[in-house]
Amino acid sequence: MIEPGKPLSEIGERGLLEYLRARIPRGEGVTIGVGDDTAMVETGARTLVTTDSLVEGVHFLREWTPAKLLGRKALSINLSDIAAMAGVPSFATISLCLPRLLPFAFVDELYDGLLERAAEVGVSLVGGNLSSAEGPVVIDVTLLGRGGEHVLRRDGALPGDLAVVTGTLGAAAAGTRLLRQGARLTAEGALEATGVWTQSSAEAVRHCLKAHLDPSPPLAFARALGEQSVAHAAIDVSDGLSGDLLTMCQASGVAAWLDIASVPVDPRMAGLERARGGDSLALALHGGEDYQLLMAVAPSQFENLKDLAVVWNLPLSVVGEFSEGPPGLSVRGESGLTPLEPGAFDHFKPPQRRSGSRA
Amino acid sequence: MIEPGKPLSEIGERGLLEYLRARIPRGEGVTIGVGDDTAMVETGARTLVTTDSLVEGVHFLREWTPAKLLGRKALSINLSDIAAMAGVPSFATISLCLPRLLPFAFVDELYDGLLERAAEVGVSLVGGNLSSAEGPVVIDVTLLGRGGEHVLRRDGALPGDLAVVTGTLGAAAAGTRLLRQGARLTAEGALEATGVWTQSSAEAVRHCLKAHLDPSPPLAFARALGEQSVAHAAIDVSDGLSGDLLTMCQASGVAAWLDIASVPVDPRMAGLERARGGDSLALALHGGEDYQLLMAVAPSQFENLKDLAVVWNLPLSVVGEFSEGPPGLSVRGESGLTPLEPGAFDHFKPPQRRSGSRA
Repeated sequence: MIEPGKPLSEIGERGLLEYLRARIPRGEGVTIGVGDDTAMVETGARTLVTTDSLVEGVHFLREWTPAKLLGRKALSINLSDIAAMAGVPSFATISLCLPRLLPFAFVDELYDGLLERAAEVGVSLVGGNLSSAEGPVVIDVTLLGRGGEHVLRRDGALPGDLAVVTGTLGAAAAGTRLLRQGARLTAEGALEATGVWTQSSAEAVRHCLKAHLDPSPPLAFARALGEQSVAHAAIDVSDGLSGDLLTMCQASGVAAWLDIASVPVDPRMAGLERARGGDSLALALHGGEDYQLLMAVAPSQFENLKDLAVVWNLPLSVVGEFSEGPPGLSVRGESGLTPLEPGAFDHFKPPQRRSGSRA
Repeated sequence: MIEPGKPLSEIGERGLLEYLRARIPRGEGVTIGVGDDTAMVETGARTLVTTDSLVEGVHFLREWTPAKLLGRKALSINLSDIAAMAGVPSFATISLCLPRLLPFAFVDELYDGLLERAAEVGVSLVGGNLSSAEGPVVIDVTLLGRGGEHVLRRDGALPGDLAVVTGTLGAAAAGTRLLRQGARLTAEGALEATGVWTQSSAEAVRHCLKAHLDPSPPLAFARALGEQSVAHAAIDVSDGLSGDLLTMCQASGVAAWLDIASVPVDPRMAGLERARGGDSLALALHGGEDYQLLMAVAPSQFENLKDLAVVWNLPLSVVGEFSEGPPGLSVRGESGLTPLEPGAFDHFKPPQRRSGSRA
């Protein structure tokens, strides 16, 4: 039993590694688990590989986020990438940069979240790396997956395809604002007692915080997409609908127009924004971190896609259409098409602002 | 053409990603390369996975190391782990944390090294991630590999097995000291003109710096190990011979003794240490980052192993033997066995010292 407040420097790298290794169960398909020079896992012929990280001060603040939810999210942002290929996630490695004076409880709770989320989605943790660093906490996850029969790339959109998005958009971006205003979730996802909401808005506040801190990419639906030929292309909506739609256009060499009235603005987020005079459409269009799927779907395939979505109880919205032309976005209104500038977060460009702060 | 001194903040994440993606060639077995939500690669049934990172201020200082050599080393430390399983490296992802004011040239030269090293060993870069972070540069590499017919774990050592090590030891640890004293390598691995050496020691200084900055794990030999049954266990010597031998003992549930006279002290390092009154044996025993292989080999297999080493022109040394007993190390001398304490670097324990500084 290690004291929760004990700094990592007093536990040491070997001690911490031993503790963490003992926590990680041996998963299915894992021939050699954590603890050797490498892991060995059983794979098929088509292996998906992706890597994404959470960096303190950029993607999260420790004061804003229970470490357990950070662990869940570090995995979820990678799960979203596997989902966007219509794949099935399988094995993950975790690489951590941790300040030497960080309390043990942070790492322990981070692993609570990593292990809980991994168990939920059938992923095995198979390796990791610990480094001390006098800087921000960095949580780097690499995730493997199995490609299905129909792997969905982002460059397959064709003119005439429908632009279809899952779920609702904008709640995560509103969650960022709410964190800035002092709203907080507990490690179990409940709203903390002190905060900036009224009783009637509490559930919407919790919903938006959860969308930001503990996203749920549509994994089961994505897996089903890999088994049927129902879409031409897919990408995860992580940089905002406008940014990711433009990315798909650029990869596919097509243009796209959006029907603003069809954008699935998250209703609970919209309620909160209405009350404060905010712009819920802007959050839904340009806010990041929704971790939904954007797909290019032939009109003839759309009924089949809808059937799949019904099975997985997932809302689908046709938000626009792809067309011939140079890559670019426009909005279709009564007076025709008007160009739309995407608004996506850029890591290196100052001033450093999260997407959600654009509203 | 991007100005070398331009800070990343002026290029932006998208601009930098596009530039880097264009530099990465599509490798063999890569169905979907960089640029989609995930990569897709062709794998066999047994996939090795490992992750290791280089962190500024812990593993390197920017003033001490050309970025190109950092790129080479970031891959090499992972290659060493695949070699320790007798596997064949195949695909890598790179995750970078970079300060926003870092000059473009750093990233460009880092990729010079990553791509050069990857091409040398037949590895394809298939993905990556960029994050800004106001902290140290973090280079995180995850490497996949193919397991051979005989995958060498670290827990297979048996009592009576010989402890066999490849190459020579201690040069990398001396390299750390030389860097601290002001010796430097150019990006092409030549000694910089200003420094602390005499003409007669220049080649030894260059050799030790190169051992630290641009290690060469015995990949071809390791691959051959996977095709024949010639060893019971293997581990890479990254924490120092004493530390890694103890780790193998603990994993295998055996003890080991070392014959100090047989430890392959790097001769050029020894020459430098002799001149300064240093302890070359301590560097060879406890100095880290040698990236050689330590194996447990049945005496009856040793001739076959030697034949393999001759093919790959690799020195082999029998440094001791495994025996029944609780995990632990001892030194065999004329008066019998005396216990040996391993001396390995611990990331979290202060004061922060590299292994090489122990001599």
